[in-house]
Amino acid sequence: MCELMGMSANVPTDVCFSFCGLIERGGGSGPHKDGWGTVIYEGNGIRCFHDPEPGFSSAMAQFLKSYPIKSRAVISHIRQANVGAVSLQNTHPFIRELWGRQITYAHNGQLDKSLFDWPLARFKPVGTTDSEYAFCWLLGQIETAFPDEQPDPVVLHHFVKERCDQLRSLGVFNMLLSDGDVLMAYCTTKLSWITRKAPFGKATLKDVDMQIDFCSHTSPDDVVTVVATEPLTCDEQWHTFSEGELITFIDGHLLPTAL
Amino acid sequence: MCELMGMSANVPTDVCFSFCGLIERGGGSGPHKDGWGTVIYEGNGIRCFHDPEPGFSSAMAQFLKSYPIKSRAVISHIRQANVGAVSLQNTHPFIRELWGRQITYAHNGQLDKSLFDWPLARFKPVGTTDSEYAFCWLLGQIETAFPDEQPDPVVLHHFVKERCDQLRSLGVFNMLLSDGDVLMAYCTTKLSWITRKAPFGKATLKDVDMQIDFCSHTSPDDVVTVVATEPLTCDEQWHTFSEGELITFIDGHLLPTAL
Repeated sequence: MCELMGMSANVPTDVCFSFCGLIERGGGSGPHKDGWGTVIYEGNGIRCFHDPEPGFSSAMAQFLKSYPIKSRAVISHIRQANVGAVSLQNTHPFIRELWGRQITYAHNGQLDKSLFDWPLARFKPVGTTDSEYAFCWLLGQIETAFPDEQPDPVVLHHFVKERCDQLRSLGVFNMLLSDGDVLMAYCTTKLSWITRKAPFGKATLKDVDMQIDFCSHTSPDDVVTVVATEPLTCDEQWHTFSEGELITFIDGHLLPTAL
Repeated sequence: MCELMGMSANVPTDVCFSFCGLIERGGGSGPHKDGWGTVIYEGNGIRCFHDPEPGFSSAMAQFLKSYPIKSRAVISHIRQANVGAVSLQNTHPFIRELWGRQITYAHNGQLDKSLFDWPLARFKPVGTTDSEYAFCWLLGQIETAFPDEQPDPVVLHHFVKERCDQLRSLGVFNMLLSDGDVLMAYCTTKLSWITRKAPFGKATLKDVDMQIDFCSHTSPDDVVTVVATEPLTCDEQWHTFSEGELITFIDGHLLPTAL
């Protein structure tokens, strides 16, 4: 299995603190040593980092832990391989362009191999994971339904929820998806989230001896949401996703999705 | 304008030496300070680095200069902006998936704004440069002609050459394109290449006080070709491209393209 981490914020925010906690599980405090990756949005542009080395000991991860890149949307992943060899091409997050937007995705779980019989549209996998295949299928479904332009986020939310439910029928499908504006998080078995806003307090990582006082890094209007497979801090109250739940975050806030 | 650098090799080779020379021109020995990027293939996977900061002073470029990633195909770019603001989304190289392959592209030059009237197929630009628009147009042309699978490299060579000639009719179009197996290099005004193979010798960078003895970094069967806007070394014989010339390199060798 793997672990996911995502961030959605209303102001460019660096994700170093959460990244430090996650990456420690990549062969250090956790067994997810088969590569790691992170995609960091700046406007519509992205910075991508993919490494098939354990995050715990990766020189590039070490560099990123102390290199604060500010962003409103981030997706990170640490891998424990099941389907697909340990290689760069099988390292999440996966990225494709749709509607002139960079769409980023990472998956935790395992899907029945009958997935590989599901017909793909124009997006084709580069690697051999079930995860990337599912992403290509999902994006093909989205593009077929909305070929010309990106739909309203609420419309997209309900469409993606239905398709994720289909994928969940094949096994465990925990997923993060972003276009740099929204962060969508879907849960089958394990996913948590927390929103930090004023009044800001302190937080302590579970996996590393590291504490932060968000007061000294934020302004009163900041809203920052972090999603993670397992809560990253030990002294904050995280919310647990329920099975089959999709939440769309925009600017750190939950998108109201009632139709 | 900008500068390009590409590598094609028959064995995984680190490109640190050439990268050190190129990146110095990103605000140091050259004026190309509006961002830099590099894409490094490992098999079908890629490591991407994009930074709108000057390469000369970028912390990430500094990291890469001493972090030898071995690859058979690399494309790098340093930018001096003309069309499109200095931003991450306008930073080359650009990447799209086609046929389940990661296709990477970088451009040096400027094209008439009538380019933006050329119809695009499914690939859409994320940023606002003429360069990325030309890439989307070119890939759309390729996919329309070869929708199902990648053609033979010689067939692709002649197809790409014709389309590059069309783009050259709009201005200056120097370009690198790769799928990780081949490196295609097209010249309008300025592009050079060199192939290093046994017997290997020494080389000295033009822009940095740095010399290498390739003997101690290679095996007798290694073949490594480097393409660059301006020769990167001062004591080797580089070949100059002619106007309208496209060369396809595979495993460091020139692809014979006579039909």
